Amino acid sequence: MTDCIFCKIIAGEIPSSQVYRDEQATAFRDINPAAPTHILIVPNKHLDSVNQMEAADEPLIGHLFSIAKSLAAEAGLTESGYRLIVNTGAGAGQTVFHLHLHLLGGKSMNHLLG
Amino acid sequence: MTDCIFCKIIAGEIPSSQVYRDEQATAFRDINPAAPTHILIVPNKHLDSVNQMEAADEPLIGHLFSIAKSLAAEAGLTESGYRLIVNTGAGAGQTVFHLHLHLLGGKSMNHLLG
Repeated sequence: MTDCIFCKIIAGEIPSSQVYRDEQATAFRDINPAAPTHILIVPNKHLDSVNQMEAADEPLIGHLFSIAKSLAAEAGLTESGYRLIVNTGAGAGQTVFHLHLHLLGGKSMNHLLG
Repeated sequence: MTDCIFCKIIAGEIPSSQVYRDEQATAFRDINPAAPTHILIVPNKHLDSVNQMEAADEPLIGHLFSIAKSLAAEAGLTESGYRLIVNTGAGAGQTVFHLHLHLLGGKSMNHLLG
């Protein structure tokens, strides 16, 4: 996907504040953080959104959650709490069309939608 | 987990507005909807939260997303968009300690945290 900014970040063609990398996924800090901790966890394989996932992608999507759990622990959020969000479609706030999991923490989040 | 309300819903001991069920997961409408479509998708197996998941649970967590994709399509949200949220810990808004994926749609959600 030559026009995908996250594919370029994963390929190292665009710099990012990377915090994790393995064969399946990459994590980096959001450039416009909405909370003290705001990390994006993305599959290395391009998927536009949840709409494009198939059953065979279930382990990959679940793996993003394992990474989120580990990064939350590193950030000291295991007890204080964290929110994981995947937006699908512009109407839901998706701005980059490469599936990504937001990890947010470090501030109180009492309401589901804010 | 005898005191878990979601385990009781899954077991049929407490009524719910169920919209999906398979061997791995159950989905039902939130009793206090935060959007026109607000469905909770839960693993049938009890996990308190993402903090309790292990690598072996990755396919199960990913499966919740496949269900979300299908339910979003049934609700006509594939194009208009939908948001998937997992809260971990009271500080992030988790109120029931049985891991659950919120599927929200049918209203504009421009901001990540509202």
